[in-house]
Amino acid sequence: MASMSSFVGSAQDPHQDFTIHNLPLGIGETWAGDGKRTVLSRIGDTVVNLDALASGGFLSGPILSSDVGRSALRSNSLNELADLGPNAWFELRQTLQRLLSSNEGVLRDDKAAREKVFYGLDDVVMRCPMEVGDYTDFYSSKEHASNVGAMFGRDPPLMHNWGCLPVGYHGRASSVVVSGTPVRRPRGLVLPKGATDPVYKECGVLDYELEMGFFVGQGNDLGCPVPCDDARKHILGLVLVNDWSARDIQKFEYVPLGPFTAKNFATTVSPWIVTLDALEPFEMEAPEQTLAPVSSYLCHSAGRPRQTYDIDLEVSISTSQNPETKTIATRSNFKHLYWTIDQMLAHHTVTGCNARTGDLIATGTITGSREDPMSYGSLLEKSWGGTRNFKLDCGAERTYLLDGDRVTMRGRCERGGVRVGFGECTGVVLPANPEASN
Amino acid sequence: MASMSSFVGSAQDPHQDFTIHNLPLGIGETWAGDGKRTVLSRIGDTVVNLDALASGGFLSGPILSSDVGRSALRSNSLNELADLGPNAWFELRQTLQRLLSSNEGVLRDDKAAREKVFYGLDDVVMRCPMEVGDYTDFYSSKEHASNVGAMFGRDPPLMHNWGCLPVGYHGRASSVVVSGTPVRRPRGLVLPKGATDPVYKECGVLDYELEMGFFVGQGNDLGCPVPCDDARKHILGLVLVNDWSARDIQKFEYVPLGPFTAKNFATTVSPWIVTLDALEPFEMEAPEQTLAPVSSYLCHSAGRPRQTYDIDLEVSISTSQNPETKTIATRSNFKHLYWTIDQMLAHHTVTGCNARTGDLIATGTITGSREDPMSYGSLLEKSWGGTRNFKLDCGAERTYLLDGDRVTMRGRCERGGVRVGFGECTGVVLPANPEASN
Repeated sequence: MASMSSFVGSAQDPHQDFTIHNLPLGIGETWAGDGKRTVLSRIGDTVVNLDALASGGFLSGPILSSDVGRSALRSNSLNELADLGPNAWFELRQTLQRLLSSNEGVLRDDKAAREKVFYGLDDVVMRCPMEVGDYTDFYSSKEHASNVGAMFGRDPPLMHNWGCLPVGYHGRASSVVVSGTPVRRPRGLVLPKGATDPVYKECGVLDYELEMGFFVGQGNDLGCPVPCDDARKHILGLVLVNDWSARDIQKFEYVPLGPFTAKNFATTVSPWIVTLDALEPFEMEAPEQTLAPVSSYLCHSAGRPRQTYDIDLEVSISTSQNPETKTIATRSNFKHLYWTIDQMLAHHTVTGCNARTGDLIATGTITGSREDPMSYGSLLEKSWGGTRNFKLDCGAERTYLLDGDRVTMRGRCERGGVRVGFGECTGVVLPANPEASN
Repeated sequence: MASMSSFVGSAQDPHQDFTIHNLPLGIGETWAGDGKRTVLSRIGDTVVNLDALASGGFLSGPILSSDVGRSALRSNSLNELADLGPNAWFELRQTLQRLLSSNEGVLRDDKAAREKVFYGLDDVVMRCPMEVGDYTDFYSSKEHASNVGAMFGRDPPLMHNWGCLPVGYHGRASSVVVSGTPVRRPRGLVLPKGATDPVYKECGVLDYELEMGFFVGQGNDLGCPVPCDDARKHILGLVLVNDWSARDIQKFEYVPLGPFTAKNFATTVSPWIVTLDALEPFEMEAPEQTLAPVSSYLCHSAGRPRQTYDIDLEVSISTSQNPETKTIATRSNFKHLYWTIDQMLAHHTVTGCNARTGDLIATGTITGSREDPMSYGSLLEKSWGGTRNFKLDCGAERTYLLDGDRVTMRGRCERGGVRVGFGECTGVVLPANPEASN
């Protein structure tokens, strides 16, 4: 596998996320065409129009050449394709990998076909990859939850239930936006230090949360929980997620029903869904679960280990004054998560809740180690509740995000010469809307 | 207005919810037709096919006879019609009211037309009236929140933030189901009294919550909050809501991020959306807000009062052994809510969150008076945390719901001879799925 290569030159770049081992799925508007939303994949710096590929007769597998397969590729969202299930995704990936490999001439030697099927990055505006039905956010990093607990003075820092089940909450689907969408600083109710009454003001404590999320492929019926063993059959793939958080608004509102307006103004996702098939070479055993006995519905059947993925993650910050100077603020890895994606889906559906095609389920902030502040996945932790500044490479200091700051997340896997990455999940902070002023 | 009458006989019944003053909107499959989902209204015990009415040329107003209006009525959901906005809803209602009135012969005297347009109740299977994008649940009854706080030993029972903003949380849209859908008793993690570790078992403390909810008509753009004064332009109408709750599962999971699996297994809505136009005669001033100063974004502009509606609500319970014996378990009224629907939408969007057509926003449990246990909107309150039984009219006793119990909610307004009702929101409890057993 490591020796596989593509005839698309940029795919061979040693820093390339979108190698022939990746072949992610996305949705974009192709300006070279008629501007309609199209199902896409990507190899190197080339975007592949899968509808055009199917129209050209290049996708001849039994599922994708059928009426439902053809309809899914002609769709303006990925939901239809996702709903076809793992066999369809596998067929697509196998066919693409063959078509794009160095030693396959069908596309390589057909310039006219390539011109219909290939786009440059600048010819495409990426959109949110799926129509999100429901968005859920978990809280599954032990290191992050422990940091937050310790900061709030809890001893022990983790609550009892945290070790027994993956704690999560329902988020807001309407404000899930694609990478590149600017994020306006929100206004809301904040309780100033020492004050009795809250004031309506712009958020002064704007934060990022480094997360990843998975999109549901085929859903489950209401009343029929998904067992851990079956979870991955329901998962299309992963993206990077920035769960923007207004910490001061959150602090005042969140007891007893959880975060609400402090997080419902924007959640950014990376545009390319990296499929579980592409991540398979980077599977590894998940951290042992020693906090509490794990209930049967959160376990795989005997002999099947809990698997996670080895995905390096980083967050960089740049300012409007120095947009080119990017400071790495967080370096973490997906593998540190205490709860796996299988356990998250099993828990989400345990009472019978139905997941639907396109649902986004995020992990919660991914912090690496409590001993290493560089691995903290949020500024809340990095600044220890706003008590510590940190220096950017451009010389400026930050506690939380200022207007004009750009936050960019990246994720990538590398093992035995095989490399698969997520591209970026980025957003810039806009000043609060003066119209909404008090 | 009170003197208006319809030529449809059942609409004149003094106990009829669906008078000519109502004319709600719904979606159903008409078995008399081809089984496809159709936009409907209702008068008395007659269902009106609005697509057929439009096809027959009876809806000649400027909006509904236009291409977008025609398309909205031909749709298999109400979302398109809702997205046309208040002028379209008003035009539809005015036209229907005229067409169905006693002194208008167009339909009254045209049997062939009536046969195309009118269906009996048994000829239609009602579906969820809208495609729900996001579902949000507020907690806006002071009496309910105080009861819960007191039960949990809080003194004072209300938290400080409760009086400053409408506390709410994101719920689960995928499991919003229409009245009549059975609800399966969930399984989940429960901490038995005195135990250290939770056990995976079927819910032993299944509850209803008497709520109402509104559906969003036209949405707002991300980053652009809806002011209180504009809220009702975005609201199509109200339905009854039963927010089924697994109290034992909720108790173990809900700190710190709020209820999750304890409420995501089912939320039942009544099938007919009663529009704000139909509710106008029942407007009344909302209760004074004395708990804390109310922030400007939660206020109407000077001189505009906070309005609510006078809607009598009741919940009845019957058992599988005595399905005909219905015991009234709750009698309450929408007018008791501390926070209005305008304030809920203004707060929901204050940080810039976008509401979309079809979003369901529920009020939270509506309890009438803390002094009157008959007005408690949940069994949690009625049984005071499971410590008090109550007797059903059939002789059986209940603390919480048992398998086979049917919960039915009703709502109705009456003033000066004008009557508008919501029909019913009902569901029966099925035993836990043996397949999910541990």
